[in-house]
Amino acid sequence: MTIENVSQNKVFGGWHKQYTHHSNVLNCAMRFAIFLPPQASDANKVPVLYWLSGLTCTDENFMQKAGAFRVAAELGIAIVAMDTSPRGDAVANDDGYDLGQGAGFYVNATQAPWSEHFHMYDYVTKELPSLIQTHFPVSEVASISGHSMGGHGALTLGLKNTQQYRSISAFSPISNPTQCPWGQKAFTAYFGNNVTRWKEHDASILLSQSTGETPILVDQGESDPFLIEQLKPLALEAAAESYSGRFELRLHAGYDHSYYFIASFIEDHLRFHAEYLFD
Amino acid sequence: MTIENVSQNKVFGGWHKQYTHHSNVLNCAMRFAIFLPPQASDANKVPVLYWLSGLTCTDENFMQKAGAFRVAAELGIAIVAMDTSPRGDAVANDDGYDLGQGAGFYVNATQAPWSEHFHMYDYVTKELPSLIQTHFPVSEVASISGHSMGGHGALTLGLKNTQQYRSISAFSPISNPTQCPWGQKAFTAYFGNNVTRWKEHDASILLSQSTGETPILVDQGESDPFLIEQLKPLALEAAAESYSGRFELRLHAGYDHSYYFIASFIEDHLRFHAEYLFD
Repeated sequence: MTIENVSQNKVFGGWHKQYTHHSNVLNCAMRFAIFLPPQASDANKVPVLYWLSGLTCTDENFMQKAGAFRVAAELGIAIVAMDTSPRGDAVANDDGYDLGQGAGFYVNATQAPWSEHFHMYDYVTKELPSLIQTHFPVSEVASISGHSMGGHGALTLGLKNTQQYRSISAFSPISNPTQCPWGQKAFTAYFGNNVTRWKEHDASILLSQSTGETPILVDQGESDPFLIEQLKPLALEAAAESYSGRFELRLHAGYDHSYYFIASFIEDHLRFHAEYLFD
Repeated sequence: MTIENVSQNKVFGGWHKQYTHHSNVLNCAMRFAIFLPPQASDANKVPVLYWLSGLTCTDENFMQKAGAFRVAAELGIAIVAMDTSPRGDAVANDDGYDLGQGAGFYVNATQAPWSEHFHMYDYVTKELPSLIQTHFPVSEVASISGHSMGGHGALTLGLKNTQQYRSISAFSPISNPTQCPWGQKAFTAYFGNNVTRWKEHDASILLSQSTGETPILVDQGESDPFLIEQLKPLALEAAAESYSGRFELRLHAGYDHSYYFIASFIEDHLRFHAEYLFD
């Protein structure tokens, strides 16, 4: 597994770096970014927060706009942001912004033409962490967070891999994708009519069935234009009633779906994860 | 002077808003953005930091990437970011990224074809502040800051308008534009061979001649690829030897020309300006 550095910027005493590599799982070239805090060294491996972005995003949106590095540098947490799907001319795509490239939904697609490359679940939970641990001064200790489609990803990957992620957080997650247009369109394409598979990737269903205790923090803006039709955080909150772990949903008056919302509260998420990453 | 709101996002308890308007000075439609801290109201008008961006930028780069709002909200400072030139199909342009649209250099051009629209000096120092004070709960108290071409703009506008701006700061400014390729190309186009006009917009020359005492803070990354050929901060530092006001140039090992550098030190700039905005 070789990786190629394509950019680096010193920031808050640490480093933001972008890399490209060939993904065996996705069968295409991929780019990711990592923030390494100043504390990271071979003698002092640091924990990692994996960040999963929303529809249309790449590794760059969070790194450029979230304002996360000041606190991550203070706490000594690395952050990894990956692309939101396989990419390239040889990869299937769709005219919609909410399917295909930029819209991988963090699942392993089973239906053609998507099943050839769209294995984001395996990429994020297996191939990428292995590559990160091989090439960077990070430990195996990890947590997961994301926004919108990436909030769905953080919740579902976190709930399904309770030994791999110590804590889960999400901004404006697609909380009940089997019941919203974005989720129904994507799951129909990626899984066909196999509703059992759909349910395996619905955070509200997974949470209601979970026997784990991974702590969860969710922030949602009340002026988010996608709140009612697409995001459905109250379904997640209802599902949490039977959950044994810490669960907190915070609603914020006036905030929307943008990175301005994320920037306003990312410090809380980093300090939340730090409680468990350094436990 | 009417303005039209085109976006708004709640952020850190305040608001980021974008507006379009017809500029009489530039004779075209323009867009600007304002951050209003939570303290701002008609009964509590807040001071303003004007932010001038670099080559190719619009009002969005700083607002999305600088991470300035946390501290601006804490301190109660509004921030205004404008576009970097007149815009539109009717406005002269050049194939280069460093001349014409996106490269106004904060001067009033005197040579055709640029002289028809390129009056960014008057726009930033006169028309825009008047419009901001008319439409928003801000006071007349102001400071000025910017990056690269906008650092040149902040220094030159600040040094030429000592009653209007209480403090000046710059990241990676084009410090001696009469002596670097970017400045020579732009000034030749905008002023022709009138070297007297060139010198009126060179921060190092202005600083060496200044009888003012406006405090100045400059941050420069030592790994900035433009440092030697284009930016020349040591010319500015030499010019400051005879300056009566506070002058500080800070060099930062490892940092480059990007917004990751700006984000790392914007808090220092905001607290520097606050010393004078609330004096």
